[in-house]
Amino acid sequence: MPLEVLQQAAAEMTNWNGSGMGVMEMSHRGKEFISIYEQAEADVRELLAVPANFKILFMQGGGLAENAIVPLNLSRGETIDVVVTGSWSEKSFKEASKYCTPHLAASGVDTQFTTLPAPKQWQLSAGTQYVHLCTNETIHGVEFQSLPDLKALGCDAPLVIDFSSHVLSRSVDWAKVGVAFGGAQKNIGPAGVTLVIVREDLLGHALKVCPSAFNYKTVADNGSMYNTPPTYSIYMAGLTFQWLKRQKEGELCGVAAMEQRNIAKAKLLYDFLDSSSFYSNHVAHDCRSRMNVPFFLADASRNDAFLAGAKAAGLLQLKGHKSVGGMRASIYNAMPIEGVQALVHYLQAFEKTQA
Amino acid sequence: MPLEVLQQAAAEMTNWNGSGMGVMEMSHRGKEFISIYEQAEADVRELLAVPANFKILFMQGGGLAENAIVPLNLSRGETIDVVVTGSWSEKSFKEASKYCTPHLAASGVDTQFTTLPAPKQWQLSAGTQYVHLCTNETIHGVEFQSLPDLKALGCDAPLVIDFSSHVLSRSVDWAKVGVAFGGAQKNIGPAGVTLVIVREDLLGHALKVCPSAFNYKTVADNGSMYNTPPTYSIYMAGLTFQWLKRQKEGELCGVAAMEQRNIAKAKLLYDFLDSSSFYSNHVAHDCRSRMNVPFFLADASRNDAFLAGAKAAGLLQLKGHKSVGGMRASIYNAMPIEGVQALVHYLQAFEKTQA
Repeated sequence: MPLEVLQQAAAEMTNWNGSGMGVMEMSHRGKEFISIYEQAEADVRELLAVPANFKILFMQGGGLAENAIVPLNLSRGETIDVVVTGSWSEKSFKEASKYCTPHLAASGVDTQFTTLPAPKQWQLSAGTQYVHLCTNETIHGVEFQSLPDLKALGCDAPLVIDFSSHVLSRSVDWAKVGVAFGGAQKNIGPAGVTLVIVREDLLGHALKVCPSAFNYKTVADNGSMYNTPPTYSIYMAGLTFQWLKRQKEGELCGVAAMEQRNIAKAKLLYDFLDSSSFYSNHVAHDCRSRMNVPFFLADASRNDAFLAGAKAAGLLQLKGHKSVGGMRASIYNAMPIEGVQALVHYLQAFEKTQA
Repeated sequence: MPLEVLQQAAAEMTNWNGSGMGVMEMSHRGKEFISIYEQAEADVRELLAVPANFKILFMQGGGLAENAIVPLNLSRGETIDVVVTGSWSEKSFKEASKYCTPHLAASGVDTQFTTLPAPKQWQLSAGTQYVHLCTNETIHGVEFQSLPDLKALGCDAPLVIDFSSHVLSRSVDWAKVGVAFGGAQKNIGPAGVTLVIVREDLLGHALKVCPSAFNYKTVADNGSMYNTPPTYSIYMAGLTFQWLKRQKEGELCGVAAMEQRNIAKAKLLYDFLDSSSFYSNHVAHDCRSRMNVPFFLADASRNDAFLAGAKAAGLLQLKGHKSVGGMRASIYNAMPIEGVQALVHYLQAFEKTQA
């Protein structure tokens, strides 16, 4: 979270905008919270250039719950296609089987998820209800640099993207998307709110067993207030949206500015890793994530010393996910380029100490 | 929310407990957040005297989502009994029909939900999977003053209570309960976390269509971290639990102290209403809610003037729910007796101006 967002939240904790009450004390149906909600919705619509025929929902359950909520809303109990590119899409595939027949359209497992299967090679099902992609895999560090054009592949079904871990780090080509969902805790705000952006024509097809609180149409018809929304999380997301709108890089602002920064941050780190024989990243160049950079020491016996030194240098949470091992740098929106520079300096310094 | 809880949250926003980071910046699997989580769980277990054979879960979705989540976990697709005592249990009855066969065991509709049907008159189904009660109905202002003993009624099924709107305002007789659930936003903390307390033998019977993120066994087996939990909401709940533990009334502390205060607050307001012919409350004396007090002016044409005067006196949110009309005072834990005294003074003063 950006420091200035946290400081603003602290300053407003007991008195929001001169109202005499804090956000946590507001009724979610009162005019004060409604104004916070509407501003957050308008800001994220502007930041991501969401077209008018998409509804923006603020839901509960996190990205993981959407693995059930999406097929409950869109599958009609029939066949869907899933492109498995890492741990998160594997979970999506598995959970969908409770509600429909997921078909493995393509998988990166043969390369240990270090490549993304090219859309031309996907085996899409005739009559598929939708195609599911996780557009950034946090554990394996692969990211789609552009979205597939399903129509060009001869598929009329909507594309569903799980953009949890790179939302607001880059623009989205909505012409190619039916539904996008993301948990908040990477680039939006505190855990507990899920951003769901759904094309209007996809509303109203939920299975009978879809809980009302997770029925996109019910949520949309009630302005995300069918159940009491996670008010404070939405407020914090709104403060982050405002912060994003203030970001500038030259002529660019908002998400475009963040995208330029994220490109620069990722280039700095990958260029260093590629120049080194002491460290390596195994992901194919055309699908390297700008958010999550897994890397390995050539000599894994030095991992513990590496992590201890990193911690002493104030560089935290660098241990790789247990399923892949090694290291992982997470360089989300809130990480400034100075943070990546500090990491590269440490990588260089540690290598020297081991010479 | 108690003011001192909000002030503590503001003070710790960017630096929790000297850790150098705010709660929103913590990994939910890091030792700092784990310590916050474990303290919150231990505190609510202590405050509510939850026995060791009950799991305490912090979930997402709110009380309303539990109307689906409970039958998904407990109904086995068979018959359940619902006692309908107002708007909330009506919703529970309706939502359950997606997953099982809800049977209307009793209803207060004949008295416009101003009485609670006596347990001896409930028509419980043979082989019912559970019996659902909403133990405090916010809109109709009825509250169970004690829980039914289903065994004494010849029923071996577990009792499920929706205690959303009076949780932590009074003790719970766990010997009579199988599952208790409550959204946070009345007496616990900000919306976005749901407290679910479930007896261990009831875990593991979810329907196949239960989303993994809402499967009680999955959530329990993962210490409420199967999906990323709503970390900040749990932290705020934890601060409220600490505040509750500090509350004292004579020899009493914690929930017992709150209960004594709530009894006194409710008595003050109901006694005044009963002494007046200008105002009235229609709920039977033995089931009047200590949390939500609906009341009516004898002359409804004075309602607008009443509300305008109340607002000028700093008494907000007194308008009754649209489905019942009139007025409603919500006097949750965080409302001190001075707030109820101020309301009674206003009620008296307004009546005088209308003489």
